[in-house]
Amino acid sequence: MTRLATIRTIDGTRAVRREGDALVDVGYADVGAYLAAGSPEATGGATYEVDGADFASVVPSPSKVVCVGHNYRNHIQEMGRELPAYPTLFPKFADTLIGAHDDIVKPVETEALDWEVELVVVVGASVRRANEEEAVAAIAGFTVMNDVSVRDWQFRTIEWTQGKIWDSSTPVGPWLVTPDEIGGVRPALRVTTTVDGQLMQSDDTGTLLFDPVHLVQYVSTIVRLNPGDLIATGTPAGVGHARDPKVYLVGGETVVTEIEGLGACVNKVVKK
Amino acid sequence: MTRLATIRTIDGTRAVRREGDALVDVGYADVGAYLAAGSPEATGGATYEVDGADFASVVPSPSKVVCVGHNYRNHIQEMGRELPAYPTLFPKFADTLIGAHDDIVKPVETEALDWEVELVVVVGASVRRANEEEAVAAIAGFTVMNDVSVRDWQFRTIEWTQGKIWDSSTPVGPWLVTPDEIGGVRPALRVTTTVDGQLMQSDDTGTLLFDPVHLVQYVSTIVRLNPGDLIATGTPAGVGHARDPKVYLVGGETVVTEIEGLGACVNKVVKK
Repeated sequence: MTRLATIRTIDGTRAVRREGDALVDVGYADVGAYLAAGSPEATGGATYEVDGADFASVVPSPSKVVCVGHNYRNHIQEMGRELPAYPTLFPKFADTLIGAHDDIVKPVETEALDWEVELVVVVGASVRRANEEEAVAAIAGFTVMNDVSVRDWQFRTIEWTQGKIWDSSTPVGPWLVTPDEIGGVRPALRVTTTVDGQLMQSDDTGTLLFDPVHLVQYVSTIVRLNPGDLIATGTPAGVGHARDPKVYLVGGETVVTEIEGLGACVNKVVKK
Repeated sequence: MTRLATIRTIDGTRAVRREGDALVDVGYADVGAYLAAGSPEATGGATYEVDGADFASVVPSPSKVVCVGHNYRNHIQEMGRELPAYPTLFPKFADTLIGAHDDIVKPVETEALDWEVELVVVVGASVRRANEEEAVAAIAGFTVMNDVSVRDWQFRTIEWTQGKIWDSSTPVGPWLVTPDEIGGVRPALRVTTTVDGQLMQSDDTGTLLFDPVHLVQYVSTIVRLNPGDLIATGTPAGVGHARDPKVYLVGGETVVTEIEGLGACVNKVVKK
């Protein structure tokens, strides 16, 4: 039963393990480096208080972030779509990621900034063409992402990438929570988004069409997964772009993306 | 007038500068690290022979690889398409890249492995929202990529990503060539692919709809570009998937992707 985070300190970022109201330094600069080292036991490190902790992205520099589209069964069915045979994949890059409580800066180039709460698999081992057992073993735990999307750019062309990789746009965290704490590697958890307190998305991660284990197998068929890599498992119904009328973030709002047992990204949207 | 490469030695990879038939070590593990250090003058390093050099990807671990689709004017027009208003972007990850002479291992999961020769911009400076002058200054030089594509997976869903990020699939190199050597930052160079000596693609990089400077500006509007990042500028007509009948790589072929003045990736396709 473990909760890990990467926090910013006066000595740079540090990987910490939560123990009650304390955060204990586990000896690495961030959770990615700690996972790459094999998650060694660590005792007696410096401690910090949970209150006021300045969270970085749980993994600040993953070698890859693979995101999944069209994965919540209820959302697919309510849209009248066929259930897809394969996961739809798109990327983010490390430069896209921010901490769980950081501001989301609205780019001046968009008037269509949107939210997407997602359950994220944090990879803990190096795997390629993982079978089911290897995929289960490769899941270090889970965290929360707000896959902030720039819809006007996303739909400029047939490829979504340019709407998904905006610099410093995407909160990830605050915690990496191990599977034992939330019912295993296929958890059924309430997943929600609120914008200024108004409920926008609400579903159950147990209804994912392609579950976390399947996704580790699928992605690792294509490309090796490394410790610290992230797989974002898709978002449920209720994004702003799909509403009638459409609703976008304009600045000043507070967006809370939360998953039961994992915690929440709480981010103010600001205009620069 | 400079040609840089990253070669594999008994001491790991090393960044080298070509001087005649010699490769002079410039003091960094790879060209990405050398660019990140500001491309300092280096003299008196170890030397290696060009003959028999074992090339790694010019930049083995870029923080991002952004590829462009639909960018050769002739190809777009012969397909009867409208000229697009914006570049189409898709990703690769560092784990996708291999050296200019490495084997391309055909994954057992595909029967639709294809070639795509591309002119690649190698970024030499950190830039965000670059204006034209900043974009020009941020181009360290150019290299060649064979954007090997797994077509059946590329078209499983509406997003191309899963056909583009196969592990160790994509040759990049052999040289980073500075703009002064090839006519500047908008070079007009013959670009070709041959498969077992048969000419498959042939065009001129001067006909790109979105030129290298424009692409640095466009991508850096979205996300910061870091030294060593790669922008692959798209492929001309003549890929196997667009032929009638379609032609794919089955193993045993030698694929040569070449750009005038830059050199060639020469890769044998092997089945494992």
